[in-house]
Amino acid sequence: MSVSTSTENHDVMGQPPMDVSVYMHALGKAARGASTALRRCDSGVKNAALAAMARHLDASRDAVLAANARDLQRGRDSGLDAALLDRLALDSSRIETMIEGLRQVASLPDPVGEIDAMQYRPSGIQVGKMRVPLGVIGIIYESRPNVTLEAASLCLKSGNACILRGGSEARESNAAIGACIQSALAETGLPMGSVQVVATTDRAAVGELIRMTEFIDVIIPRGGKSLIERISREARVPVIKHLDGVCHVYIDATADRHKALDIAVNAKTHRYGTCNTMETLLIDAPVAAELLPELASAYASHQVELRGCERCREILPQALPATEEDWAAEYLAPVLAIKVVDGIEEAMDHIDRFGSHHTDAIVTQDYGLARRFMAEVDSSSVIINASTRFADGFEYGLGAEIGISTDKLHARGPVGLEGLTTQKYVVFGDGQVRQ
Amino acid sequence: MSVSTSTENHDVMGQPPMDVSVYMHALGKAARGASTALRRCDSGVKNAALAAMARHLDASRDAVLAANARDLQRGRDSGLDAALLDRLALDSSRIETMIEGLRQVASLPDPVGEIDAMQYRPSGIQVGKMRVPLGVIGIIYESRPNVTLEAASLCLKSGNACILRGGSEARESNAAIGACIQSALAETGLPMGSVQVVATTDRAAVGELIRMTEFIDVIIPRGGKSLIERISREARVPVIKHLDGVCHVYIDATADRHKALDIAVNAKTHRYGTCNTMETLLIDAPVAAELLPELASAYASHQVELRGCERCREILPQALPATEEDWAAEYLAPVLAIKVVDGIEEAMDHIDRFGSHHTDAIVTQDYGLARRFMAEVDSSSVIINASTRFADGFEYGLGAEIGISTDKLHARGPVGLEGLTTQKYVVFGDGQVRQ
Repeated sequence: MSVSTSTENHDVMGQPPMDVSVYMHALGKAARGASTALRRCDSGVKNAALAAMARHLDASRDAVLAANARDLQRGRDSGLDAALLDRLALDSSRIETMIEGLRQVASLPDPVGEIDAMQYRPSGIQVGKMRVPLGVIGIIYESRPNVTLEAASLCLKSGNACILRGGSEARESNAAIGACIQSALAETGLPMGSVQVVATTDRAAVGELIRMTEFIDVIIPRGGKSLIERISREARVPVIKHLDGVCHVYIDATADRHKALDIAVNAKTHRYGTCNTMETLLIDAPVAAELLPELASAYASHQVELRGCERCREILPQALPATEEDWAAEYLAPVLAIKVVDGIEEAMDHIDRFGSHHTDAIVTQDYGLARRFMAEVDSSSVIINASTRFADGFEYGLGAEIGISTDKLHARGPVGLEGLTTQKYVVFGDGQVRQ
Repeated sequence: MSVSTSTENHDVMGQPPMDVSVYMHALGKAARGASTALRRCDSGVKNAALAAMARHLDASRDAVLAANARDLQRGRDSGLDAALLDRLALDSSRIETMIEGLRQVASLPDPVGEIDAMQYRPSGIQVGKMRVPLGVIGIIYESRPNVTLEAASLCLKSGNACILRGGSEARESNAAIGACIQSALAETGLPMGSVQVVATTDRAAVGELIRMTEFIDVIIPRGGKSLIERISREARVPVIKHLDGVCHVYIDATADRHKALDIAVNAKTHRYGTCNTMETLLIDAPVAAELLPELASAYASHQVELRGCERCREILPQALPATEEDWAAEYLAPVLAIKVVDGIEEAMDHIDRFGSHHTDAIVTQDYGLARRFMAEVDSSSVIINASTRFADGFEYGLGAEIGISTDKLHARGPVGLEGLTTQKYVVFGDGQVRQ
């Protein structure tokens, strides 16, 4: 078991330390080369590669589960917490879900090659915009080994080469899944550089990856805020990301009472650890006294701790006093901040000041307020009369999601296959020249 | 005339040195506040502001021309070259063009608020993507003072606040145009922070602007390569840009002879200093001996210097030998590199290796080669049987252009009003919660 005792400077295959910079540049060069082949690749070949990945994973269940067992053992030995071990763990049903995921991605329409808005111009040329792959995508993620396959499948389907850098705690699982992917690429005749799993756990590999502007077109980091902050700060390659999900639900005085309760409870309690979970509830003063006690009892049944502004605590004395920090907090836990506001202006000002521009919802029966909230709240998802939990690639019909972006350039909100592509102008002429 | 003798550390109004960081942060904060108002602003108000700008500019011709005359005098005194002085100069007809430009931007459709791809999902929610302003745009440019008005009008129409930093050689012209813009904003009731012309020529202002991530959403630099390289390297705010326009025309063996000649001559000689001008001609070996002499005589009549590969020089001994540097050169001058290639593969490999992914064209009558070139060349504009000079916002029907981007994220190719916006997801529900 030399593998599980290898140091951080040894790669997952137990090889001696290597020059990380040389290694990463070799991966980058191979990816760049592969991206040229993938750009030319038709949908049939890409779907065949996805089907081959599913077959190879199916045939390699034992090897993948054995590798995962070694990762888990090493994780337990080094004292990883239960939540992390849960994210790391694979079992037969999770592998089934991964295989099903591959089939779903294969069944999605291929975004590459679509031409939009083709029109004749007075000069006689025709101009349109063609959807094309970004090129090479670097993905940096933490413990969940199923991300390796998900990310590989979405990048491949969208015609991009990718370099995948998973967490060191999942290194054997990722290597085993990577072997299945490589076998599938070989079988389909696609270059090995199409999908590459970084085989070193040396942290310097991340530093190289995010600075190789000649080989990498975009970096997508998935993981905790500190990882993403560090990557955003140090990257020379453009990054698609979100840092925080400080999401709000604003209950307006005209809101339907039952819908307001359902949405406010669901947005907080459906799942606590997700980025589209509500972290602050804003409630319009005229209905606060009526709705807050009922909400509080619903939250109490879910053991949600409440932290309120002063006006909230006049109605709910059991709530803890909220501090300035609470308004900006992403709890990712059964904790909720509550603020009583005087109307939509104060609500939107609060969202603008403390929110993270991720997902914000209003509950209202007033047409004008719904229209204003939709136009004026500057978040990647703006929701009227539904739970913030809907901000998700599957729920939005993207078929799959590689992450959620709160950036303004390029992809914003849930990022699916289209977010992994760009557009170029295509012009058809018949000998035209500029006058 | 204290103004024209002020030092670089004094602002254009002759005020004493200020703390540039404090000043730029004040501009940033005002812009951020204004962007909230502009986001809410309907098309009528924005168009009224554009009309008011036109009126104020018309009424202030004398003041603007006098300021420009002082800039020109200072430029001549400090030895600016003739080309720069020409770009700096305003006259009655250039002011007329600026006024006409404002009217054109007012007449363009407002991209803000458009909702695309609205669909019902199985959960019962409706999901669509709404086009919204980016927020605050910083524009950094060189000598041409008309950019001040163009940039202001495009940013305003797309609902963005902007901070404009022109070249120090145009500081009085820019201040005079800025005064017209401010009067128009005041008259229309829009915040003064909507359009701000940086009133210091201190270079540190640029450094502040490109790092104020809390206030600025995107930087658009317009100017020489060294300016743009420096900004890209040092910016913390995302940058939309192009560095080079190393554009190619590839004449395939099946090309229509007359179209090939017209396009190759127009792409080089229509204008020399523009980024979409052809810099390298690639010609398929079977037709090189027939076409090159005729091309050479056309170029000779335009005094274009030719630099050829060895095979080219066997046909055109008068061409200078091209070196490796010539293949990557953006001459912006009457100079052309010519390479004889063996077919489309070698042409596309050359374009991929030496091009700048700006604009590349093929001349061919072969359907399959046209289709391949269109799909496989990874440039912001790919053109079949027309001149590279068509890569332009007006020619493409965008109505106006703030620049051309060779970046892959967000806007690519000519950037018009739509490129100054982003999309957010909007969800309409009726009380739905996640199951």
